[in-house]
Formats: sequence, C-alpha cells, structure tokens
Amino acid sequence: MSEIWIDRHRERLDAAVAASAARTYFSAFEASPSPGPSGAAARRTGTAAFRSWLDEEFPLATPGADGTVATERSPFGFDLRVRYPRVTDIETLLAPRRGARAWRDAGPDGRVGVCMQILDRLYDRGFEIASAVRHTSGQPFGVAFSSSVANTLDRSLEALAWSWQAQSRVAPTAVWTRPGDGGGGMEKTYTVIPRGTSLVIGSDVFPTWNAWPALFASLAAGNRVVVQPHPSAVLPLAITVQVCQEVLAEAGFDVGLVTLAVGDHADHLHEQLAVRPEVRIIDFTGSASFCNWLEERAGQAVLFTDSPGVNSVILDSTDDFGALCGHLARSLALCTGQMSTAPQNLLVPRDGIETDEGLKSPREVADGLAAAFDRLLSDDESAVEILGALASPAVLEFVESASKEGEVLIASRRVTHPMYADAEVHTPVLVGLQAVDADVYSGENLGAVCYLVETADTEESIALFYLMASRHGAVSASVYSTSPAVVDEVRDVALDVGVALSENLLDQVYVNTVSAFSDFYGAGASPASGATFLDAAFVAPRFRIAQSRRPV
Amino acid sequence: MSEIWIDRHRERLDAAVAASAARTYFSAFEASPSPGPSGAAARRTGTAAFRSWLDEEFPLATPGADGTVATERSPFGFDLRVRYPRVTDIETLLAPRRGARAWRDAGPDGRVGVCMQILDRLYDRGFEIASAVRHTSGQPFGVAFSSSVANTLDRSLEALAWSWQAQSRVAPTAVWTRPGDGGGGMEKTYTVIPRGTSLVIGSDVFPTWNAWPALFASLAAGNRVVVQPHPSAVLPLAITVQVCQEVLAEAGFDVGLVTLAVGDHADHLHEQLAVRPEVRIIDFTGSASFCNWLEERAGQAVLFTDSPGVNSVILDSTDDFGALCGHLARSLALCTGQMSTAPQNLLVPRDGIETDEGLKSPREVADGLAAAFDRLLSDDESAVEILGALASPAVLEFVESASKEGEVLIASRRVTHPMYADAEVHTPVLVGLQAVDADVYSGENLGAVCYLVETADTEESIALFYLMASRHGAVSASVYSTSPAVVDEVRDVALDVGVALSENLLDQVYVNTVSAFSDFYGAGASPASGATFLDAAFVAPRFRIAQSRRPV
Repeated sequence: MSEIWIDRHRERLDAAVAASAARTYFSAFEASPSPGPSGAAARRTGTAAFRSWLDEEFPLATPGADGTVATERSPFGFDLRVRYPRVTDIETLLAPRRGARAWRDAGPDGRVGVCMQILDRLYDRGFEIASAVRHTSGQPFGVAFSSSVANTLDRSLEALAWSWQAQSRVAPTAVWTRPGDGGGGMEKTYTVIPRGTSLVIGSDVFPTWNAWPALFASLAAGNRVVVQPHPSAVLPLAITVQVCQEVLAEAGFDVGLVTLAVGDHADHLHEQLAVRPEVRIIDFTGSASFCNWLEERAGQAVLFTDSPGVNSVILDSTDDFGALCGHLARSLALCTGQMSTAPQNLLVPRDGIETDEGLKSPREVADGLAAAFDRLLSDDESAVEILGALASPAVLEFVESASKEGEVLIASRRVTHPMYADAEVHTPVLVGLQAVDADVYSGENLGAVCYLVETADTEESIALFYLMASRHGAVSASVYSTSPAVVDEVRDVALDVGVALSENLLDQVYVNTVSAFSDFYGAGASPASGATFLDAAFVAPRFRIAQSRRPV
Repeated sequence: MSEIWIDRHRERLDAAVAASAARTYFSAFEASPSPGPSGAAARRTGTAAFRSWLDEEFPLATPGADGTVATERSPFGFDLRVRYPRVTDIETLLAPRRGARAWRDAGPDGRVGVCMQILDRLYDRGFEIASAVRHTSGQPFGVAFSSSVANTLDRSLEALAWSWQAQSRVAPTAVWTRPGDGGGGMEKTYTVIPRGTSLVIGSDVFPTWNAWPALFASLAAGNRVVVQPHPSAVLPLAITVQVCQEVLAEAGFDVGLVTLAVGDHADHLHEQLAVRPEVRIIDFTGSASFCNWLEERAGQAVLFTDSPGVNSVILDSTDDFGALCGHLARSLALCTGQMSTAPQNLLVPRDGIETDEGLKSPREVADGLAAAFDRLLSDDESAVEILGALASPAVLEFVESASKEGEVLIASRRVTHPMYADAEVHTPVLVGLQAVDADVYSGENLGAVCYLVETADTEESIALFYLMASRHGAVSASVYSTSPAVVDEVRDVALDVGVALSENLLDQVYVNTVSAFSDFYGAGASPASGATFLDAAFVAPRFRIAQSRRPV
C-alpha cells in the first residue's frame, strides 16, 4: 500500500534529492497564483473556504481536549471566532499511539510517499491557507500564497528530500563475513526507528514557514507529531493537521500520528508541553528569550530553535544609487519588515558612500530611500498588497517607542485599507542612529522599524556586522560595494559568523528572498540558534537505525 | 598542500564511505598484532615507549595551564607518575585560535585527509597506546590493542567517512537561474563552517572508544577540539593529542586546534568546561547521572551523550547448551564485564529452558556457566589475558555489595597475576535474583557483576527487557530461542526500544562485538542517551553550510 504513494511521487523525489545537493534552481510548487479566469476562480473558492471556518467549530478531534477555545483576531480588524479543541489533559494528548509501529514499518519510502501526497493536498488548498495566514499574521495575500504556501511547500519537499536521502543511505540488510572466521558470517537487518514524540511550536508571524518543514522532517522519520500553534495563528496549522489526518487515513495509518494542540494565550501550552519527558524533539522559531528558555529547561529533547537576530546591510559604494534605493525600499516594505530576513540596520559611513551620482551622505541615502518609499507606497491600494498589516498591537507600540530613540528620517504613516477600515496597515519607520547606540539597534526587532546607523567608516560597519551577528545571530546580511576587497572582507566575516550574505543585489532577488533547494535559511552560528537550516543536521537527529543480527 | 593528504588517502576514504552505507565487512586497521618476530619486536618497542613516559613530564604545551598534575594509577598496582600540564585558566584555554580560518579554508578534503594521516600515525603507535590503555583502564593487552586501538581507529575512520560524505554532499558553488526572470541569475558559494569549540570528555574504562570518533568527527568538520581526559586515564589521550599536533604542524596548521586539558580529580574540570558559552559541542559517554547533569546545565551545546544502560540476555531455548554456556561465559569474562556491551541480566524462566540436553533449570544454567568459567579462567596466566584488571577500587566494592543482594551462584575469585603482585584481577560474580528484585538489577553496573534473574516465563523476560531498555537504555541485547515466533517478538521489542539485538550467537561473534562499518553501537532510544551512534546524526550537527550569493 505504501509503495503506491512513493511510486506516484518518485520522479519528483529524485529530482528534489538531486536539487538539494546541486543547489541550482528547482521548484515543485508554482509560486504565482495562475492568472486568468481559472486562477481568479480558484482564489475565490479558496477565500470562501477560509470564510466558511469563521464563527465555526473546527472539525478536528484532539486526544486530551475538553471544550473549545477561540483565540484569533485578524490584523485586518475582526475576530476569527474559529473554535478549536482545547487541550486540558496533556497525559492523554501524549499517550503512546497504537499506530506507531505500522508507521515505522512503512519504511522511508512509504512515509515519504505519504508526506509528499500531503504536500500536494496542501497545495490544492493553497488559497484557503493563504487567506488563513493573511488573517492571522497580516501578510499580504500574494506573499501569503507565494511565501507561506508555495515556497514553504518547496522547503518542506526539500526537508523530505534530505530526510529520505539520510534514511535511505544505510542498506536495509547486509551479510557480514569476516575474513579468516570460516563459517557463514552474520546476516544483519537495519531499521529506521523514530526518536520519539516531536513537538512543533508555531509562530504568530510566519505560522507555516518553519512549522511545515519541521512537521514533515519529523513525520517522515517515523515520529508522531504534536503541532502546537501560536494562539494568534491557529487556523493555518489546523488546516494543515486536517490535511495530514485525511491523507494518513486514506493510506491506512493512524490519524493520531499528527495532532493539533491548542490552548488559550494564558495556558502557555507550549511551555507545558516542552518539558514533558515524552517530547524528544522540539522545533521553534521566534524570540531569543524562548530559545534560551528551551535550552535551559528542555534538555530531554533535541532542539531545533532559531531566533532571527539582527540583520545588517553594509553600504560602502555602488554604481547604481537609484536602483539600490528602490531595491532596499522594497526589502524594507515587504510585510512591513516583519519577515525575519528583513534588514534591521543600514550601516552607512558618516562621510557617505561613493555612487554613480557622486558621494551620498547618510542623510542623502535616507532621502533616496524616502523617495523610493514614496514611489512604492504612496498609493494606498497597492501599498497594502506590499505591506500587509501589523501582526500584533505590539508592533505598533514598537514603532512608536523606536521613533523616540533617534532622529526619524522617514516617518511611519498609517495606510487606509480599501476594504478593511480597522486594518492596522502602516509604512515602516527609518530611524537615524550613531554607532554608539548599540543598545537600541541590537535589540529584538518586531518589524516596521529600520535603523540607519552612521559609522566612522566601512571598517567600523564591518566590525558592527560582526559584533551583531556573533552576539545575536542574523538571518540575512547584505553588502553594497564596488570594491572587490571590501566584498571579500565582508564575505570572510560572514563565514566567521555563519550568516548568509547577499552581495550587490539590485534585481528581482531581494535580501529577503529564500529560494528552496538553493539558499540555506537560518540564523547561522549564532549562540541563540540551534538549527532550522534544511540540511543533514535538520533531519538526521530525528531518527536512528536499529539493528539485529544472526548467524547465517 | 591539503590536497596531498587527501590524495594519499582517497582510495581508503572511498572504500570507507561505500562500506558505511553497505554495512558489509570492512576494516582498515588490522586488529591482531602481527605474529612472529616482527610483531613481537613491535610490541616490545611499544611497551618500552609506554614505560619511557613513566615518572616524566609529558611534553605538551596547553594554553591556560600552570604547573603539572599526575593522577594515574595502574590497576596492575603501581602509580604512573606521568606529569601533565594542569589547566588553571579556562579563559586562556578557550581563547579563539588564529588558525581556525586556515583550518576552515582547508575544506572537507583537506581536513579529512589530515585526519586520516593522524589515524595512520596513531596506528603506528598502537602498541604504545595499547600499553597506556592497559595501565590506565585495566584492559588485557590483546583487548586494548584490538578494541581500543585497531577497532577504534576503524570506528574513527567510519566517523570520518560519514562526515566527509555529509560535508561533501552540497556543491561548493552553483549558478541559480529562475525561469522567467530574464537576466543572468545568481552565482552562489557554499562553505562548510564549524559549529564552535568541541569538548571531548574522556572515560576511565574505555578512554579512546568514544573519544576518538568524537574528536575526529569534530575536527574534520572544522572545529577546534579540547580533549579532557578522565584523571584516571590521561595517557592514551595525551599521546593522541601529541600525534594530532604533530600531524597538524607537518601539514602547516595551528597545533592548538587540538589541546589536552587535564585537571586533578578534585578540579572537576569537565564540569567547569561543559557550561562555558564557547563550548558548542560536547561528547561524553559514561554515567547516566552525568548525562543528565549535562542535559540540565549545558544547553548551550549540542550533546552527544551515551550511558551504557542495562543489557539483557533473554534465554528461552537452544539446540546447543554447551556452546551457549561457553559463549556466554566468555562474554561475561571479557574485561571482567566492564565493557559497556557486556550482558548484565540473564533472564531465565523459572521452569527452565529447553535445550539439546533436556530442560535446564535456572540453577542448571548457572552450573553450566560455572563449568564454562572453570574451563576459561581456572589457569591464572591465561585468565588475566581475558579478564584484565578492575579499572578502579569502586568495581571491587560493587562486587562485594552486589554479592549480598541475592544468592551467589558463581563466586568471584581473586586471580594472581604472574607479573604484577598487586594487580586487582578478579573473576565476575553471578548473583541469582527474582523478577521482583528490579531495584537491584536495574542499577548502574560498574562491571564484574552479572545477574541471573528468574522470570515467570519468556513473556515476562521480554517484558523485563522492554522495561529495562526503555527506562535505562541498553547497548546490547541478546536472545537465545529455537522458536522463530519468540525471536520475532524480541526483535520487534528491540526496535521499539532502539537496542541492537544479537540472535542465537554461538560462534566467534560475541554480543560484545561491535564491527565498525557494520554494527551500530550506542544506547539507542533510551532517555539517558543522545547519540554516540556513528551515523549522520553524529556528524551533521558539528558543522553548518554558510552561503554567499551575487548577481552573475
């Protein structure tokens, strides 16, 4: 039975395995919603499917749940009022599953085949999920579809490719004969076995981004998975678990291998679950403080944690100042800078940067960005499709407090949403700081705030990049320089701190862009960061190989 | 320069990579000391080299050391009085190494080539190291050479093969072009970067067994390594570090990439080092309590910990009772049961087991073992070459206390060593217990003690195996049964608890035998166990891939 599933997906799997090593372009899930009437109809159907959940009880059974809880409010200004089973009995939630052996015995091929089938089903419901992400996390619909659905499915497929490759490396059986022993030697059997219960803790801002690859990496390795969404962003993961359970049931496996565990904000369910001895794997991406909490309390589990850190842009020189400003402005505006890859600190030498338009002082760089912002965001209707909405009231408070820390070079402006009067849509603020203000620009960034930091020179800019990334980690870094020596130096520092570096980007690829199968995403070698890289380290600790041996 | 090293070892590396996947027989280091005059001469030279260290200051420089310390006593009855640099300033010990970048830039090929050269040099000094292991840990010379040198070199090579394969999987560069973008796409560079400082904490009983594979897995991935031996077993690892530094220097790298950190027993240097923020990787094999200590305190590091756990032998039936007794007796006697793979609990149904010699009661099984012990160990001169000596006075105390917990079925006997009058050589004790005595037979076993546990029937034996292995872990498990159904059931339980199972072994392969490249060694899925399996999970978390990208 399991073989049916892998056979259906074999060709795509082989291509994905090859791509994960070659790192050239590969994608299995089209990121642009298809244009024309059929695309528009699919989008309408998906939006309607999302709307049908509002004010309803979500049809999922969770062991250990009693009653329901509704915790979500759209950043576009309304409560979702979807009711989910509320977990009250953790013992029952985590009780061993009878179906675990059958899932183990399905083997890498069977499990990966079923997981790939789930990916296809999630894509089928992509517009519905994108609407859910939009209304829990404030992403513009286009970003929600391309990034939180299509690209995240590609990254999930990449996780499956890495996992399948790692699980399949060891032969299932072998005959071992030692020279000189005489006799027949030993017959040996090798079986991939799961590590244990996997806990996936969801994020409010990007609910699927890390949760999906983690879920599939754990499930494909034979583990049962407890999905614990952030109370502010449950629906995308509730739909995910529903799809997982549907496909598991169709394939003849225990639906309880993937469960949804929801609590009220005050329940702190993630903390309760994280310290349980049954939980042997934890995935979490978000605040550095909770990453540290997990390191201190959840030693029983292998941790895949990641905190965005502090992203730097080193501005040294450019031969296209206009393109640079337009490019950076879009990076900052996308999702109002709430993406973990968004730049936080623009490091500009106080004497200015050499450009094709002459030397540009920090003030002139800010002016150039302001003009680019105007071009990009002055029309409210198109601005909302770039900015999205602020994921939580805390972001707006952060904008207000950050604005007081320095000179406001570009003020934040409230944007009126054409459809949602109460939507919290704002443009990002650009705040001018000096190199000495590290206590401000090294802090956790909730989004919508960017700092332009004046440095003594490019050497100091590079030193600050090193300092920020080595102390706090970073998900992205960027350098603009016409000097190969400067680029080389920044590249060496980026290797020291383990941060992905983008050099002189001016075109369609933004510093925020993470291409599945090619770019490695994660906060690198930072102290607050375990591993959310999709690589061997992300998949291998989730399983083990057990052997038996007997004389031939 | 680095290429010279890998080219020299390429053929062996390719064979090792293939063998680590195929799991058939492979070995690069001959385990039997060569017979004849040249072998004897080599052994004499090695023993003399060992003796030359006694009463001397070991010529190694360790940053942060002040003065020396001598901490070792041979279980054969004399103090080694080798003086090692004593670490007093941990800040200096862990200060960043200037040579780190060059080691990173050597790439997977360069690093693995240098590491393979180190393996060859260690083998060249194999007799010297075996003598050191013998006189720190009490292993018989033959075991020290075959197991702690040759087999551990094979396991180190296996770790290198896994690591090289994992590091080399991703292309070093790629050109990425997205269809429809127009233009030239992106050029990307991928570089393996180290995780950080790696701390290898040594064991007293098996100083090289886990330390070597850990050292090489970390070093090959670009990490600098601090080797922290158990104060009772420094010399084998001091020689190891000396060899590493020699080869690093010859290859033009910083010798400080591998350092020896020794403290007095009372310094608890391992605890001081384990909690340092610089330390990002820790390897330790030993007591469950220190594994737990690390899980609670050393959350900043990725842990590769393993505790031996409780090994079970399920006796159900056999068609060769004589061979079974002889085989088991040797398993128990080897290194006086101080190997982590040695059986701890023999589970025998109270109504006895069916054999070719008729039904054998638990008492008759004990008698059969006693007779086999007699044949194996009655001659003192040959007995010492099987038993070795007790690694520490604690083992003798353990024998005495365990003997009071039940009926002594086979008494421990002091063996007189023909050369060392003060050597602590003893035969193991076999203590009879009932299934209800779990508080006794589930405890940590220091060696030289085996329990014969009477169970209601084989079903209860299997249940006890499950209980012990799931609660405490196990490094080995063994079943003797002529019933395929019983063997199948035990095999399924072994998969549940993640323990390597040996079925009906009667020949040259013992339950203690771990064949590099074929057997997976480790305490499996037990709670107290992270991972010391030589597999992808052992190597992948020790490095990361950092990327840079630029428009073509």
